[in-house]
Amino acid sequence: MTRLDTVIKRLMAQRSCLNAAAETLGNMAGPVLELGLGNGRTYDHLRFLFPDREIFVFDREVASHPDCRPDPEHLFLGAMQETLVTAAEQLGPAAVLAHADIGFGGAEATERNVVALGPKIPPLLKSGGLVICDQSLDRFEGLSPLPLPPDVEPGRYHVYRRD
Amino acid sequence: MTRLDTVIKRLMAQRSCLNAAAETLGNMAGPVLELGLGNGRTYDHLRFLFPDREIFVFDREVASHPDCRPDPEHLFLGAMQETLVTAAEQLGPAAVLAHADIGFGGAEATERNVVALGPKIPPLLKSGGLVICDQSLDRFEGLSPLPLPPDVEPGRYHVYRRD
Repeated sequence: MTRLDTVIKRLMAQRSCLNAAAETLGNMAGPVLELGLGNGRTYDHLRFLFPDREIFVFDREVASHPDCRPDPEHLFLGAMQETLVTAAEQLGPAAVLAHADIGFGGAEATERNVVALGPKIPPLLKSGGLVICDQSLDRFEGLSPLPLPPDVEPGRYHVYRRD
Repeated sequence: MTRLDTVIKRLMAQRSCLNAAAETLGNMAGPVLELGLGNGRTYDHLRFLFPDREIFVFDREVASHPDCRPDPEHLFLGAMQETLVTAAEQLGPAAVLAHADIGFGGAEATERNVVALGPKIPPLLKSGGLVICDQSLDRFEGLSPLPLPPDVEPGRYHVYRRD
């Protein structure tokens, strides 16, 4: 398995989980959260899946494709361990979905990020809302693992329901 | 088709073309060229496909994962429109494969890059060598288009044989 194989599997798993979440959520009301805008590819997919919902985006800076930029009212700019807290104060536990692609290249940096951000995600979600994450959030309270779509290998992506 | 869909299709097309090239080239002797190291995913795949060949990498800087870094003897660092010329002088028309992922986000920047780099690729290849590119190189002399692998949509990736 090369790194090219791995990224293809990861992106396909991400897409499958997002598509399944759109089905699962149906008409449940609430905004969507994108933790990490990056180049904006996943944001673009979220816009497609959730055309009628507000999508709030969190990132340190806006480095996405010009076509994939949220308006300033839907952008929490800065360190996510701070902006997630700010967002919880402003929005309350309102979101129906948070997608969090929070892994780095290195295992240690990823672990630090998961520890820093994991506990700050559940307070943003309403009961029954979903979290889709590239990293395991099993250790954090308030989130129950859900089965993955059948085409996603266990461990490749993670889906949780807010208790 | 979202940008997430597009990148998945592009990466799968890239992988299919590279895998097919490894089959086509068989034991034909010569090094492999990777134009654009990026995060090193494709380089990692090339190492897997061509374990016994030299792989020379061209990029402005090394920003790849630490596991995916060529040694300095196989790295042409700097602006590619210059390093491709330097490499042609040093290596001659020796390569059996050049993989070139030379598109940018914007169409104009991509066009400038294709115009700048396209003519500098054929002099690096031996007759019968292959060029695999995310952009069309149809306009450049010395390259004949080859059929794509059956799972690759026309236009998604491009394969040429050096005349």
